[in-house]
Amino acid sequence: MTQTQDFGFGTQIRKSPYFDATVRWGATGFSVYNHMYIPRDFGDPVQNFWNLINDAILCDVAVERQVEITGPDAARFAQLLTPRDLSKMAVGQCKYVLITNAQGGILNDPIMLRLAENHFWISLADSDILLWAQGVAVHSGMDVTIREPDVSPLQLQGPKSGQVMRALFGDAIMDLRYYWLRQVELDGIPLIVSRTGWSSELGYELYLQDSSRGDELWEKIMAVGGPIGLKPGHTSSIRRIEGGMLSYHADADINTNPYELGLDRLVNLDTEVDFIGKAALRRIRDEGPARRQVGLVIEGEPLSGPNTTFWPVTLDGRTVGKVTSAIHSPRLGQNIALAMLVVDAAHLGASVQVQTRTGVMAATIVEQPFYDPKKSIAAA
Amino acid sequence: MTQTQDFGFGTQIRKSPYFDATVRWGATGFSVYNHMYIPRDFGDPVQNFWNLINDAILCDVAVERQVEITGPDAARFAQLLTPRDLSKMAVGQCKYVLITNAQGGILNDPIMLRLAENHFWISLADSDILLWAQGVAVHSGMDVTIREPDVSPLQLQGPKSGQVMRALFGDAIMDLRYYWLRQVELDGIPLIVSRTGWSSELGYELYLQDSSRGDELWEKIMAVGGPIGLKPGHTSSIRRIEGGMLSYHADADINTNPYELGLDRLVNLDTEVDFIGKAALRRIRDEGPARRQVGLVIEGEPLSGPNTTFWPVTLDGRTVGKVTSAIHSPRLGQNIALAMLVVDAAHLGASVQVQTRTGVMAATIVEQPFYDPKKSIAAA
Repeated sequence: MTQTQDFGFGTQIRKSPYFDATVRWGATGFSVYNHMYIPRDFGDPVQNFWNLINDAILCDVAVERQVEITGPDAARFAQLLTPRDLSKMAVGQCKYVLITNAQGGILNDPIMLRLAENHFWISLADSDILLWAQGVAVHSGMDVTIREPDVSPLQLQGPKSGQVMRALFGDAIMDLRYYWLRQVELDGIPLIVSRTGWSSELGYELYLQDSSRGDELWEKIMAVGGPIGLKPGHTSSIRRIEGGMLSYHADADINTNPYELGLDRLVNLDTEVDFIGKAALRRIRDEGPARRQVGLVIEGEPLSGPNTTFWPVTLDGRTVGKVTSAIHSPRLGQNIALAMLVVDAAHLGASVQVQTRTGVMAATIVEQPFYDPKKSIAAA
Repeated sequence: MTQTQDFGFGTQIRKSPYFDATVRWGATGFSVYNHMYIPRDFGDPVQNFWNLINDAILCDVAVERQVEITGPDAARFAQLLTPRDLSKMAVGQCKYVLITNAQGGILNDPIMLRLAENHFWISLADSDILLWAQGVAVHSGMDVTIREPDVSPLQLQGPKSGQVMRALFGDAIMDLRYYWLRQVELDGIPLIVSRTGWSSELGYELYLQDSSRGDELWEKIMAVGGPIGLKPGHTSSIRRIEGGMLSYHADADINTNPYELGLDRLVNLDTEVDFIGKAALRRIRDEGPARRQVGLVIEGEPLSGPNTTFWPVTLDGRTVGKVTSAIHSPRLGQNIALAMLVVDAAHLGASVQVQTRTGVMAATIVEQPFYDPKKSIAAA
């Protein structure tokens, strides 16, 4: 694809309110997510990784479209959509949740935000949960309104993101807790900010509520952040794989259940609360999942980029699963990967073979996450 | 994006079973549709257009994912999903339908295929109708199974496509009627073929039912079709705009209703049959839609490519709508466009102004489709 403002094949894929700004600031490659372009390359993904872990980066994640649920039954409906227990979710709180279908398959792994008693946003990974939620509502008998509001998030991530936030919003913002949100303004631009992200680093998301002001918002943040060390960037596959974070469609899909991912903590079967998939998930829990996600360290030369197909994993010539995400971590000096294996092959420390396009590589099953700053600090 | 087999940023976007074949046969640019790569450039979109209208092209449209509905209530459930009357839809028939939400907004404009009494496929435009349909089913009380089967369509389109089909499947295929389907095999490869497409030309779709055989199928068709004049290609924006065919997200979306598009024939309000959106669509019909899609001929220099943003349309300085799809037709020697205007500005023959990125262009509202072979033949 080209780098010009005429980027694209028509209007079938939307442009973010930050699109022109990201091109101006050096975006050289885009992918598509939720029917919208997302910058995925500013010339050097490894430099982007160092910028993220040493300083801070600003990322256009307007593709995280919001599903807004309002109405008298909004809270009850939000709970219907997820196996996670929301009964203690306060107004102003965010939660990482799974959305499951009647078979317990994962449809999305969004952040849910509670803006008011009966006012929720679901900040989406890449699938049309707007259609899922509207479809569920049709015969639900609940009084809810479900729509996509004019909201376009940015991610501000990295160890210096706190300083940038302080410079933008003053000292008051420093007491914003992990996975909480606040309504703020920046020179009259209406925002929700939350201490969330997709980097395992200190980070914030800024939800712009007026798409006509995207360019202005981007420039204001870069102007304030630049002297602190803020760089334009994009979500880092290296950092999120180091952190064992999921990429929907790659590491999880409609045929994956929470137990296969070890995400038992996001499923609450021990209440009277009803949610879609409860019976199926109870059955899966009782029987035990057939597959299990593991971390792999893959030997050999550094991978030149991410895997672009699912690489088969074999054990003594038998196919036992697939690598879903693989990349070279320059910090760890290792090729690291997430893989989904049959349970009887998913043992810590075991050796397996990975069938890449260019040949077979040996790999070892290891603990996740690959990098945990808390452990590193403790060891230091 | 690159042209190598390592194309892409990871496994988050799927590759079609024909991906390697299309790269081998010259695909130079890809877009994303239904979470999957689709070739959209073989080097020269204008040459692709001439190949389509003079000879025939083979297009990878595996992105047309299928939603399969089976079970005792499948026929009743299929009708629930669309305002089009399906009561006379025979087994073996296809229908172009709209899928609407409770507000009458369009969620997709797929082809529906009836494979058996209670066995339907919905061959999708770009949105997750799998989630919509599963969501609707949750509380519907109907006994249906809804899933995405292993089906990957190809389009074989153009005046010589009939000859290619005859060479592939023998004389028997020649009596396949417009919008009917048939189960066939090609050297043991299981297929459904239908006389449908997205080109307004004679054309067929071939639904591969075993994704492991995509490369083999592509090569067999090209080997047989090549001597007849078949070229590798991609869906043609020029031809589909000439034909006034919709591109979902560009020309229609969740906030567009069928009456705005003049698609009254796809809405049947005069039966006892229940479908989602019926009450809303009755209200819209009775009140009359607020907007109306029109065709535009835009004056000035030939457009160098499609519009990549929605261009505002103004009348005496007042914004009255937007251009949704615009392109230069080399056959007509005109810039042609689809636009959505407020009803009081949507008069045939009226002059309006189009605000492009590079300046204002004068335009005239004209009848659609821009090119109709039947009229041309009659006039000849």
